[in-house]
Amino acid sequence: MEKSAEDIFEGFKEHSIAEFFKRNKQMLGYSGKVHSMVTVVHEYVSNSMDACEDAGILPFISVRIKQLGDERYSISVDDNGPGVPKKFVGKALGTILTGTKFHVYRQQRGQQGIGAAGCTLFAQITTGKPIHVVSSTGENAYGCDISIDIGKNKPVVNNILPAERKSKGLSVQGEFEGIKYENSEKSVFEYLRRTALANPHVEIMFYAPDGKEYTFTRSVETIPSPSKAIKPHPLGISVNDLLDFARVSSSRKTSVFLSETFARMSSAKVQEITGIVGESITDKAPKDLDWASAESLIKAFKSVKWIAPDATAISSIGEERVKAAIDNILTPEYVYIVERKPQVLHGGIPFIVEAAIAYGGNSGRKSSEDEYTWNIMRFANRVPLLFDAGSCAITEAVKGIQWKRYGIDIDNRPVSIFVNVSSVYIPYSGVGKEAISKEEELVEEIRLALMDTARGLQKYIGGKQKVSAAKTRYRTLMNYAGQLSSDLSYLTKADKKEIERSLERLILKHYPKAKESDAELEEEKGA
Amino acid sequence: MEKSAEDIFEGFKEHSIAEFFKRNKQMLGYSGKVHSMVTVVHEYVSNSMDACEDAGILPFISVRIKQLGDERYSISVDDNGPGVPKKFVGKALGTILTGTKFHVYRQQRGQQGIGAAGCTLFAQITTGKPIHVVSSTGENAYGCDISIDIGKNKPVVNNILPAERKSKGLSVQGEFEGIKYENSEKSVFEYLRRTALANPHVEIMFYAPDGKEYTFTRSVETIPSPSKAIKPHPLGISVNDLLDFARVSSSRKTSVFLSETFARMSSAKVQEITGIVGESITDKAPKDLDWASAESLIKAFKSVKWIAPDATAISSIGEERVKAAIDNILTPEYVYIVERKPQVLHGGIPFIVEAAIAYGGNSGRKSSEDEYTWNIMRFANRVPLLFDAGSCAITEAVKGIQWKRYGIDIDNRPVSIFVNVSSVYIPYSGVGKEAISKEEELVEEIRLALMDTARGLQKYIGGKQKVSAAKTRYRTLMNYAGQLSSDLSYLTKADKKEIERSLERLILKHYPKAKESDAELEEEKGA
Repeated sequence: MEKSAEDIFEGFKEHSIAEFFKRNKQMLGYSGKVHSMVTVVHEYVSNSMDACEDAGILPFISVRIKQLGDERYSISVDDNGPGVPKKFVGKALGTILTGTKFHVYRQQRGQQGIGAAGCTLFAQITTGKPIHVVSSTGENAYGCDISIDIGKNKPVVNNILPAERKSKGLSVQGEFEGIKYENSEKSVFEYLRRTALANPHVEIMFYAPDGKEYTFTRSVETIPSPSKAIKPHPLGISVNDLLDFARVSSSRKTSVFLSETFARMSSAKVQEITGIVGESITDKAPKDLDWASAESLIKAFKSVKWIAPDATAISSIGEERVKAAIDNILTPEYVYIVERKPQVLHGGIPFIVEAAIAYGGNSGRKSSEDEYTWNIMRFANRVPLLFDAGSCAITEAVKGIQWKRYGIDIDNRPVSIFVNVSSVYIPYSGVGKEAISKEEELVEEIRLALMDTARGLQKYIGGKQKVSAAKTRYRTLMNYAGQLSSDLSYLTKADKKEIERSLERLILKHYPKAKESDAELEEEKGA
Repeated sequence: MEKSAEDIFEGFKEHSIAEFFKRNKQMLGYSGKVHSMVTVVHEYVSNSMDACEDAGILPFISVRIKQLGDERYSISVDDNGPGVPKKFVGKALGTILTGTKFHVYRQQRGQQGIGAAGCTLFAQITTGKPIHVVSSTGENAYGCDISIDIGKNKPVVNNILPAERKSKGLSVQGEFEGIKYENSEKSVFEYLRRTALANPHVEIMFYAPDGKEYTFTRSVETIPSPSKAIKPHPLGISVNDLLDFARVSSSRKTSVFLSETFARMSSAKVQEITGIVGESITDKAPKDLDWASAESLIKAFKSVKWIAPDATAISSIGEERVKAAIDNILTPEYVYIVERKPQVLHGGIPFIVEAAIAYGGNSGRKSSEDEYTWNIMRFANRVPLLFDAGSCAITEAVKGIQWKRYGIDIDNRPVSIFVNVSSVYIPYSGVGKEAISKEEELVEEIRLALMDTARGLQKYIGGKQKVSAAKTRYRTLMNYAGQLSSDLSYLTKADKKEIERSLERLILKHYPKAKESDAELEEEKGA
């Protein structure tokens, strides 16, 4: 029997984003018990670091996990950041898709306004409990409980009371079920270790549920300069973006609107563009721009030359800091670091790739008792990415390198590959922000950085092998030389020591590296 | 200089889900030009099939793509479904997260209420144009233009006018930029080919932008019985779910609420549960249940025995239909099909895995002029999944099989592996629904199905090899037999034919398969 359209559409209704993610929590990173625990820690720790850096404070973060039952844990994260004003705390932690971070071209770890509210949702649907917050912005500290009215995606804030807290900061505590602590490659410990690696200015204390305590000490004492909001570059926006900006502009003329809104838009450029599209467009009020006018503006943008977007708003980690952090945490035998120049995504979004390769020490991953293999440490805006490697631009770039060509037997060597992509906008492949979308421009730029690191390591391994071959021959010949000198000395009555020295000089002529080798190695390591 | 919390939270605001996906369209599958085009076709075609099956109509769908400029195309999809009533059309195509499909335990292709509205958003932000709809629900046909008020996530419906359309159905047409038609493994053509494969009751016409026309003909004439909404199984719900159901219940007592809301909840079961949790809970009004009471109910659910959830609401494709479709489209030399019994995800969500392996014919993928390799065709509720294979439970299961153990050199054989997972709830790994989350229960069940198919193919290939070895020896011996008979006949004067027949009998005793082989092969093929 056929059913009518009316029957079918009966009960048709709109749903809240909180309802959607309640039903699809795996999309936020709540899939699997170990993974879910890392997601909670990740969301809180990223928020704390963003807040501290925003406020110009060297971050000190402590993470405390207590086991309350089989698969039930309390997780709390405490920071020394600026705190959250009482009137904003509900929105910040109890509404999905809220934040300041949404429309601003500015580099931050969080960029979606989902993370911390997602934790509240996850606590609520697994244990029915609100999260508990204590915060101080410098004056009076307060505490409160926060949950989400899921059907409406609105915060429910209860038990707002004065609290004991002497210093500024935010402490968030939640109770979660269906999660698990594990000491694996994809664990909270590893997440924090990598966070420390990419953020050497952060000090992290970790109180694990098994009673162990870890400190990841700060290895540099300067805060990365706080990220600035930048004006968008004319090449990085679409027709639709242009109209969005125009709609909220209060300028009387489009020409003024252009120079006020976009980076690199000098008055000479405005004139040049007016020359292309005509005054009928640039004299219009921006509010009156229609799609066709905006489209001709965008076309004009693409036809003129621009200075590349300003990359000063992007804060990469920096070569020295990467080196300090890798030495601190991996203590490798050799490390090679590459920081590439800023590049541009979609024509207007600046990004910077940093890559490093570390060899020996604690680099790589143990594959059996005595054997090591490689691992990748992926980062986006210094946040470690532990999951969904298969969907990530970084993995794609690593796979694109023919490591054997560089004489690097990556499968059987203690090699760690470190890649950090920094940008005001990272195109994540999913809402859970666990992988960077495989955009061609990104993959290619990462590949170039990795080729550089591969050449660095090739030189080191090559040098080591050459030196070791020379050493072996030198030693063999020197063994013969000892015996030969005795025999010659016996036959010729010449001094044995004298003959030995002559022979050694002769041998060293052929294998000059064999004796200087240690010094040389040191030199190459430092290069 | 330190910044205060007030400074930081200035401008803090809530954002609409439409704004979020506008900024992160790659999360909906709009990443890459070819991929983006497939996403549009996929969303419209899935909606059409759902609508037709809901209404009990054999689907006839036509897809028309026209190139309008470099990377600019018009895509239209027309169906013979029930149509969309005028008053719902704005919500259906102009609001993200709207649908009937959200809270109902029922198998459908769409389950999120994002897809078609996502296409509207994508058209709008790439070309500024609304989508154009023509629909008839049987009475008067109408046409209109739909776009989204992105800041509010509300539909904007314009130009509502009577339209010429004789039969029921829906036609949607949109103009998109930044997309590309390509004839590759991940193309619209392949998407439709696989759709036809998993939906042999659907007839699809495809008008490609290069002027070519394709028809994927219907190979079975019966509509899969329309999916029923089922009551949730007590083992498939969380404490939070139970409270959600309780909140909207009008029952006076929890005991009544339980038997009305859940599957397999007989009055004997309600009594059993009351025995465990006490009447103080089951006599309560469901609205008054708190977390603790709900938790004890859920614990009680877990401690009693249940009949498995009803899987009749799940419509798998069915062995015969899979065979008909594979024969129709791949014309393989051999095919082996497995339909597993219904299994249960998270304790209460029924799902069914179907797998097939096809060998020869158009199976597999050409890797060079004369060489073939394998491919996987992944489906969820009969919808082909072309992207993000690395994140998918099906890929994970395929990788978990040691094909060599089954004597299948999968890398160098024309093998197609077909897997379809059917359920009232598919845990997709992302909003774009391109991969099934790697949940252990799913991966394991798919692996078991694949092992079955591997054994099937092993037997076939093994048989073929044995037969072919026997045939070779038989032929070699028979060549000798000819010469030997002549020689013996010459020496003994016995009849050459007679000797030859005796020798053949002798040889056949040892290689009996060599002559029956073709018949046998046929038999094995049919098994």
